[in-house]
Amino acid sequence: MSVAGNAPEYIRAIMPYLPGKPVSELAREMGIAEGSIVKLASNENPLGMSACARDAITGVLSEVARYPDGNAFALKAAICSKFGVRAEQLVIGNGSNDILELAARAFMAPGCAAVFSQHAFAVYPLATNAVGAKCIEVPARDFGHDLDAMAAAITPETRIVFVANPNNPTGTFLSGEQLEAFLGNVPRDVLVVLDEAYTEYLAPEQSYDALGWLARFPNLLISRTFSKAYGLAGLRVGYAIAHPEVADLMNRVRQPFNVSSIALAAAEAALGDDEFLAQSAEVNRRGMMQITGALSELGLEWIPSSGNFVAFRAGDAAAVNLGLLKRGVIVRPIAGYGMPEWLRVSIGLSEENTRFIEALRQILA
Amino acid sequence: MSVAGNAPEYIRAIMPYLPGKPVSELAREMGIAEGSIVKLASNENPLGMSACARDAITGVLSEVARYPDGNAFALKAAICSKFGVRAEQLVIGNGSNDILELAARAFMAPGCAAVFSQHAFAVYPLATNAVGAKCIEVPARDFGHDLDAMAAAITPETRIVFVANPNNPTGTFLSGEQLEAFLGNVPRDVLVVLDEAYTEYLAPEQSYDALGWLARFPNLLISRTFSKAYGLAGLRVGYAIAHPEVADLMNRVRQPFNVSSIALAAAEAALGDDEFLAQSAEVNRRGMMQITGALSELGLEWIPSSGNFVAFRAGDAAAVNLGLLKRGVIVRPIAGYGMPEWLRVSIGLSEENTRFIEALRQILA
Repeated sequence: MSVAGNAPEYIRAIMPYLPGKPVSELAREMGIAEGSIVKLASNENPLGMSACARDAITGVLSEVARYPDGNAFALKAAICSKFGVRAEQLVIGNGSNDILELAARAFMAPGCAAVFSQHAFAVYPLATNAVGAKCIEVPARDFGHDLDAMAAAITPETRIVFVANPNNPTGTFLSGEQLEAFLGNVPRDVLVVLDEAYTEYLAPEQSYDALGWLARFPNLLISRTFSKAYGLAGLRVGYAIAHPEVADLMNRVRQPFNVSSIALAAAEAALGDDEFLAQSAEVNRRGMMQITGALSELGLEWIPSSGNFVAFRAGDAAAVNLGLLKRGVIVRPIAGYGMPEWLRVSIGLSEENTRFIEALRQILA
Repeated sequence: MSVAGNAPEYIRAIMPYLPGKPVSELAREMGIAEGSIVKLASNENPLGMSACARDAITGVLSEVARYPDGNAFALKAAICSKFGVRAEQLVIGNGSNDILELAARAFMAPGCAAVFSQHAFAVYPLATNAVGAKCIEVPARDFGHDLDAMAAAITPETRIVFVANPNNPTGTFLSGEQLEAFLGNVPRDVLVVLDEAYTEYLAPEQSYDALGWLARFPNLLISRTFSKAYGLAGLRVGYAIAHPEVADLMNRVRQPFNVSSIALAAAEAALGDDEFLAQSAEVNRRGMMQITGALSELGLEWIPSSGNFVAFRAGDAAAVNLGLLKRGVIVRPIAGYGMPEWLRVSIGLSEENTRFIEALRQILA
């Protein structure tokens, strides 16, 4: 027997996550100059990062040989101040991917189960499988979460329900009323992981106050990231706000230095730049109109999205994707999300959106 | 029942890792100016990072809003070129802490066990406990690994043996002959994680070729880090070299974007700066003589160390540590490693070592 043959069966069954193709990889594969490639594949902020974050990074570069503050004192203080929470409610993650995984590892083991929706974020089943727990995937309703069916799917073995709002890759949105009613239907010993990775892109009329629910629902965990609207995907930093007991257990399985000192400093600075956030949301709002308008014009079905991306039905998605790649445009195939005819495009700058639209027009012509 | 009460028993039993006190924390607590504090607590490189690494970071700052390359193409190519290995043998980790944990998660589950030495690195039991596996701690011999006893301690449930060389926090060293003989005594379905975090500090006459053993021992994993001699602790990057099947399973449980783009770029550049590595080793060699000479002069017992730190018997270690803190010098208490009378001091720059020695002299007077 080899070492690998001796690994747990559920580990050997895991299929790795398929990330968006990096620009450098497409450039190598297709022989295209990196500078002429448009990447609209990973829901990144096309404005880059806030100048405040950049200055903060420069300010800590000379300390790179030192370990980061494993307790993230300064970033936690900034989050507490901005959102009116306490440090013991916080977990700082190596991206919110880390948060999702820490929740899975702290609260599940072989024999447990997690509930999530069809077409929801790929990391939910990955994190669940990696701890040997069972996945309970609930059929979507109109590409979004069917919360009643999800509450009904909870078994005695269920320890976590993952809810993405807005959902990735479909962009569907659940209102505060729907979420609050759902929390009332979930047993108190089941953790509800509310994944708000795209919450900064919600329109003002969609806003709801999940933080206000924490006092009534100690089984609620709110997961957020600096990878999207804050423009720090390359640095890997996200956070959870939860009941102190929940945060404490997650911090016990957290790697002591899971977040780099550069990410900590940049996130702290980015948190204070409300103007950059507002600008990011506005660029996204306009780009969303530009792209969905063009999709409609091309006669393509698309799913109304509350995030910084939109999924559209391309038909022969693999062929359309290849055509886009050949034209130097990277979007995301989502066959792995049970949507083989669809592609997901991230909202970019106006000129990037135009490149995508023109390439798509040529392919469909 | 609460969510936390419902968590696996082995998770609730975990005690979190105690990191070295950050400079900023001591400054807050003692009201000392940050600039006057000497931190010799975390085995960091006192020279900082290589100028090449700094330039590489500056070069990728404008891309921080993009996700990192989850496959680490460029860093893997650099490692392959430097060490003559193949990309499919590699796992890139968020520090080598991540490597240790990925090994635990890919190869152990509740019911399994890991073998490691008394006084060995604290992350071995942490990573083992976090997956619900059992810890088999083998008594040390002269503060180092007793390899014969470790081989004999392997049970049918054992999936991993952790070996640190040099060991942290004691600095003890195992020769290539000893390690090779040990590998011959370990069953082929048990993974040997050879943790070489401090290998760049070995004297030329200590060097051995673990990479050369991989072909004969497919159950060997070599773990290395950029946090020590390479001076990139704040960025979090390490790597494993192993059999492709072992690496493949670890990559399946690895977070898709576990290492930041800045860390990838800095590590790639640092790998090529042999001059900086040589200078770091030389500063360490001289600082080790300076500190151990002073410890001997003060009549203190110390353990000959092959790393960039040395453990010494302080007697009332808590009192000595407090005295050092009051004088603005941070070292590491290692009571948690079963050595309550000892402290571990990292080798710093000459003037930092002098600050430590003078403070210690005052306390003992």
